[in-house]
Amino acid sequence: MGKTIAEKILSTKSGRDVKANDIVVAELDFIMGQDGTSPLAIQAFQEMQARRVFDPARIAMVIDHSAPSPLEGVSELHRQMRSFAGEQGICFYDIGDGVCHQLLPEQGHVVPGDLVIGADSHTCTYGAINVFSTGVGSTDLAAGLISGKLWFKVPETFKFVLNGQLPAGVYSKDLILHLIGDVTADGATYMAAEYVGEAIAGLSVEARFTISNMAIEMGAKAGLMDADQKTLDWVKEHSTKSFTPVKADADAVYARVKEYDVSRLEPQVARPHTVDNVAPIGEVAGTPIQQGVIGTCTNGRMEDLRIAASILKGRKVKSRLIVAPSSRQVMLQAIREGLIEIFLESGAAVVTPGCGPCVGTHNGVPSDGENVISTANRNFKGRMGNNRAFIYLGSPATVAASVIKGEISDPREYLR
Amino acid sequence: MGKTIAEKILSTKSGRDVKANDIVVAELDFIMGQDGTSPLAIQAFQEMQARRVFDPARIAMVIDHSAPSPLEGVSELHRQMRSFAGEQGICFYDIGDGVCHQLLPEQGHVVPGDLVIGADSHTCTYGAINVFSTGVGSTDLAAGLISGKLWFKVPETFKFVLNGQLPAGVYSKDLILHLIGDVTADGATYMAAEYVGEAIAGLSVEARFTISNMAIEMGAKAGLMDADQKTLDWVKEHSTKSFTPVKADADAVYARVKEYDVSRLEPQVARPHTVDNVAPIGEVAGTPIQQGVIGTCTNGRMEDLRIAASILKGRKVKSRLIVAPSSRQVMLQAIREGLIEIFLESGAAVVTPGCGPCVGTHNGVPSDGENVISTANRNFKGRMGNNRAFIYLGSPATVAASVIKGEISDPREYLR
Repeated sequence: MGKTIAEKILSTKSGRDVKANDIVVAELDFIMGQDGTSPLAIQAFQEMQARRVFDPARIAMVIDHSAPSPLEGVSELHRQMRSFAGEQGICFYDIGDGVCHQLLPEQGHVVPGDLVIGADSHTCTYGAINVFSTGVGSTDLAAGLISGKLWFKVPETFKFVLNGQLPAGVYSKDLILHLIGDVTADGATYMAAEYVGEAIAGLSVEARFTISNMAIEMGAKAGLMDADQKTLDWVKEHSTKSFTPVKADADAVYARVKEYDVSRLEPQVARPHTVDNVAPIGEVAGTPIQQGVIGTCTNGRMEDLRIAASILKGRKVKSRLIVAPSSRQVMLQAIREGLIEIFLESGAAVVTPGCGPCVGTHNGVPSDGENVISTANRNFKGRMGNNRAFIYLGSPATVAASVIKGEISDPREYLR
Repeated sequence: MGKTIAEKILSTKSGRDVKANDIVVAELDFIMGQDGTSPLAIQAFQEMQARRVFDPARIAMVIDHSAPSPLEGVSELHRQMRSFAGEQGICFYDIGDGVCHQLLPEQGHVVPGDLVIGADSHTCTYGAINVFSTGVGSTDLAAGLISGKLWFKVPETFKFVLNGQLPAGVYSKDLILHLIGDVTADGATYMAAEYVGEAIAGLSVEARFTISNMAIEMGAKAGLMDADQKTLDWVKEHSTKSFTPVKADADAVYARVKEYDVSRLEPQVARPHTVDNVAPIGEVAGTPIQQGVIGTCTNGRMEDLRIAASILKGRKVKSRLIVAPSSRQVMLQAIREGLIEIFLESGAAVVTPGCGPCVGTHNGVPSDGENVISTANRNFKGRMGNNRAFIYLGSPATVAASVIKGEISDPREYLR
């Protein structure tokens, strides 16, 4: 009987021939922790009386959620992380280096066929380059740090067949919002999503990351894609690691399959306060906006910044706009391409590469009653640090168009 | 009997012939509030049952201390400021626009001969362009907003005669630290400082701002300089306002005069935990440093960034480094000159234009026991948000040299 991508990767990494719902112990190719989760993992590591991590070359810790530190208590957690990483010799990304989910693929730590855990729910991002990656809690992270292994229940797979090509002004963010709106926030709980079809093939690798990033927002444990030629080219450009891409068998068994034609999709917006409260742009256009956010692990890459800048160029924002490039490399490249100048001239506040205001720890907490439109992946009450604010989610194009008018706006108006 | 600059400006603005120690009510040319102080002033304004400010064109409010907001409570204060400024039609600088003390001169709001109050202790900065400017509390700010006037005790003047030219690798920051170390933190309490002599003449206007900015650190109410040709050129480049520079009379009466030869001055560092605990670089070199800060109203201007970048170019930092350009215009220019690329490539975290980590509200609070070297103006316990950290103050060159080695270092080593 054929296997899905998830079944194949977990078979290889557990050394067994496994299928959905089996429980396996599998070897991890890479492990990541960020500053919201690593301190607890370090504490658990110490409580387990461990001395050394299993392999420092296969671990990274990243300060991205609060970078630079906004509070004394957070600074102490950062100090613990620096100290632990230094003692153990593990790879460390400090303030200003960027968001973990940008850094792991960008810096070549993860490659197709890998099994990866990260103590962050959006670790599923790397599925876009054919990595089975998933978010874990701090205690599981500690177990991984010590043993290099973790147990998994092999997930069933929900296959999304995406036909057609996205129209101009409609992006991968709109596509994934549409899927989440359709299947709902628990529509793929504990499943692996597999995204296939000509719509995926037509997207850049950067655009694909946005889709896999939000797999968790439909409850999925992983958001997997095939490694096509674009993937192989992208990975070879970023990593020196050898790898073996994994493809689902033609006779793989799927728990669920849904087919979509994306060719008439409109820009989509998730309304407060759930990510699956999705509407086409027409239903929300005109909603007043006080703050826009472009960035985060969902949409802070070069392609996103280029799209936003193409709309903002030569225009002034009416709402506040916060731009958070997803990494040092992205910020450098955005400077070289003139994009940061465009943002600054439009009136944006450009913040340090990292998670920016997405997680509510600093860098742009909204005020009571304010409406925010963000390229992030979550909009629950309080997500940005104020549970009396209202968060809308959209593509970088939709955010850029909206801050220009000070109200949610259709970005297709700015197509040249 | 001749008059000092302070006596002349306060005579003109009060319409009386006043001398030191007189009490006057004077007309204000410009009034400024920042986000740490404006909310209380707005509250006082409302408690005084005022309806309109005296002249919206002569008032600015600036969000710089916590920009973008790191906390819900701060966001509410920002909202109050935006709302008040909008209702009253006063000039408003929002997140990402920069530090108030950069913006007021840069945007042409203040010109020689002006009398200016700001609800921020470093309002004395504009003395460098011949402005009598001084910090006030929130209630005085409210009184100023309503009436356009404020009472002053005319200060006595402490004249600093600065002979010689600063040697290479030694900057205006070193000079003012040296003066403060010499006269101590209360050596000029409630006096106006007048800085004169060939050392001042030899400095750029940008470098002079650093000296006037720190007048308050010797207790002075204002830190005044003559308007020479450099001043006139600089002001005309930044402002369309007409103005009349004010010069002290040759027979002005000074409460105190001190003369210095700066031609053999070495780089200076203020050690924890007082700004007057100043030592030449040789006495502190080798002290381990975990974080450097380049920016703030003291040293976040183009000249400062150019000096720091000239040292950091092609080198990597060993300590963390936070760079906070002092305004949107400074950030744009620094991008155009390639300086931000140099900082990013060296490993720095570049934060949003504004006060950065200087005031301890966000953007780089140090950890317990850490040593920070900063271009800021204050190093008391807890200034940066952690009273178990240690803050050293130096020039941008000294900070750049120090973060490269991870210990306090003499920047003259990097002179070409």
